[in-house]
Amino acid sequence: MIRWLDSADPGRVHTEGHMARAALEEAREQVAAFLGTRGRQVVFTSGATEAINAAVFGAVARWSESGKERPRIALAGVEHSAVREASERQAEIRLLPVDRAGMIDPHGVTEAIAERPTTLVHCQLANHEIGTIQKVKEVAEVCRESAVLLHVDAAAGAGSVRIGFDQLGADFLSVSAAKLGGPRGCGVLLIRRGLRVPPFIAGGMQERARRGGLENVAAAAGFGAAAAELASTLEREAESARRLMQQLRDVALCIDGVEAFGPRDERDRLPGLLCVGLDRVEAEPVLVGLDRAGVAAHSGSSCSSESLEPSPVLEAIGADADHSLRFTAGWSTTEEDVRMACEALPAVVARLRAMAPG
Amino acid sequence: MIRWLDSADPGRVHTEGHMARAALEEAREQVAAFLGTRGRQVVFTSGATEAINAAVFGAVARWSESGKERPRIALAGVEHSAVREASERQAEIRLLPVDRAGMIDPHGVTEAIAERPTTLVHCQLANHEIGTIQKVKEVAEVCRESAVLLHVDAAAGAGSVRIGFDQLGADFLSVSAAKLGGPRGCGVLLIRRGLRVPPFIAGGMQERARRGGLENVAAAAGFGAAAAELASTLEREAESARRLMQQLRDVALCIDGVEAFGPRDERDRLPGLLCVGLDRVEAEPVLVGLDRAGVAAHSGSSCSSESLEPSPVLEAIGADADHSLRFTAGWSTTEEDVRMACEALPAVVARLRAMAPG
Repeated sequence: MIRWLDSADPGRVHTEGHMARAALEEAREQVAAFLGTRGRQVVFTSGATEAINAAVFGAVARWSESGKERPRIALAGVEHSAVREASERQAEIRLLPVDRAGMIDPHGVTEAIAERPTTLVHCQLANHEIGTIQKVKEVAEVCRESAVLLHVDAAAGAGSVRIGFDQLGADFLSVSAAKLGGPRGCGVLLIRRGLRVPPFIAGGMQERARRGGLENVAAAAGFGAAAAELASTLEREAESARRLMQQLRDVALCIDGVEAFGPRDERDRLPGLLCVGLDRVEAEPVLVGLDRAGVAAHSGSSCSSESLEPSPVLEAIGADADHSLRFTAGWSTTEEDVRMACEALPAVVARLRAMAPG
Repeated sequence: MIRWLDSADPGRVHTEGHMARAALEEAREQVAAFLGTRGRQVVFTSGATEAINAAVFGAVARWSESGKERPRIALAGVEHSAVREASERQAEIRLLPVDRAGMIDPHGVTEAIAERPTTLVHCQLANHEIGTIQKVKEVAEVCRESAVLLHVDAAAGAGSVRIGFDQLGADFLSVSAAKLGGPRGCGVLLIRRGLRVPPFIAGGMQERARRGGLENVAAAAGFGAAAAELASTLEREAESARRLMQQLRDVALCIDGVEAFGPRDERDRLPGLLCVGLDRVEAEPVLVGLDRAGVAAHSGSSCSSESLEPSPVLEAIGADADHSLRFTAGWSTTEEDVRMACEALPAVVARLRAMAPG
């Protein structure tokens, strides 16, 4: 990746341009192979948020071009705020029901589609806050039967759930490089073969006229390298993360008044994520205490900057965001990290509860 | 920049997050100081193309929210394709006249605005293909008098023309980091103090709710470093580029049937850019010949990938893109590079003309 930080414009006909083009296309093939599709289906973006916006923009533009009424998008409350916000401003929203574990019911999708013509359905691959792995294949079948477009936000899931885009039946799938060991500022939108949508970022014929602007070759190369590595190590890494988080989960659930959110069956959960509710103690001072002990955890919503805003995901499953904590284990997490968390969490909670009035 | 490639999310409350936030805000101050404004006016984007799209989106969204009729945008044919394409799909276009040197006439802007209510005017800082420096301050006065929003595409000019955004009178200004020695995949949109516009990329409160998505701290840090350097070296670098390009210009104009495009007065031209028209020889084989001699030049449009599409800029000034060549000198260009170009250009043109039939 560092080699390409000062790469030439891959659109130029000189030698430096050809070399940059070759690096970009190799990265595209690596990402495509990792996600179970062909290079032509891959549009590089500046991240998952842009990719999500592009999917919504593309679906709505197709809808409006065909002269249809006001667009309508179906999504669950557990979708990422980017999915919700990109959709809300362009369409009427039909909220899909979820169960207490945050699972989207495919029958709920059927009902929503049957009610009124629908522009787009969102179904995340897995939830970013509580780890619920959704039944995307079943939702995709429902959408295909009714010829409704489906976007899959795979940002939280792509690093630990194997994706076969061409077999999945989805029309769009968005991934963030940063979430799977690749660089910040890079993502992809996969677009189903044969589906033509106008570009979200206009201005240039780059990415087969699907995304204008000078290509970020270094970032793409970094994403490609991460994807190539993960293509062979995903299951092994997922198993390692599962084992590490199980230790922390066992410790956390021994603490009085702590419950784990998300599905009970571990096959329905992301292996590297643990979200717990804490009775009788606020999340924020716990975070501060953990940070002092060298443990970086999180509360509230994953991706909102400059504020600890209430989490719509936790709201959707009826949980209290102010009393929730989220831990994640990734490719760089060690046994030692988890040992520190296992030691710190009960101690911090006990200290804060002892300090509390009453 | 490399230090921040694996930075934490600057939105997190843990130590790593705070460090990333500090790096991002330092970069923002560096870019703001370089562009003559305050950090609050700076929105980091994935590049100039996204920044341009965001300016157009923001202006049109404000217009539509106030219940006005179909949006109308005034721009000249010499604007970058990103400016044109982002505008065309959202608004009716009023084309602004330019003279043979590609100069936008402020009186033409006055006339366009007087005809009908106008949503937005584009006026580039300088042209990316022929180097014309526009009279932005005069255009800004015209726009302010009529309370019409002005966007300045400064991608081509920011590296060699000193910008004072707060004094300029523009509402939006877009810059690409890659064009001034910074990294690919990074740019900024400046938004005038007090002007509120909805985000183009929705989904998160990052960048003061003006651009959703995980911040690319490494890219911002690289842009900040380049801006900090250039803040003190801009005039010196511009003078060096001017001197180098003058050598090549003198050599080129000695070749029979070669003319230079753009303004005659060098104060009205970008110092590091030379665009020439070639009689009796096509640009493409000249490019190939120059490439073999180690000289990377360009023809047609600057930013269109995968094709040598006809240049609307050259069309706007009545020149033939298939017979045009563009050379640029930047911070990394050496005396030796220019010497090679001065040697290669006459030789390649002479050889091709000798080979031509008739």
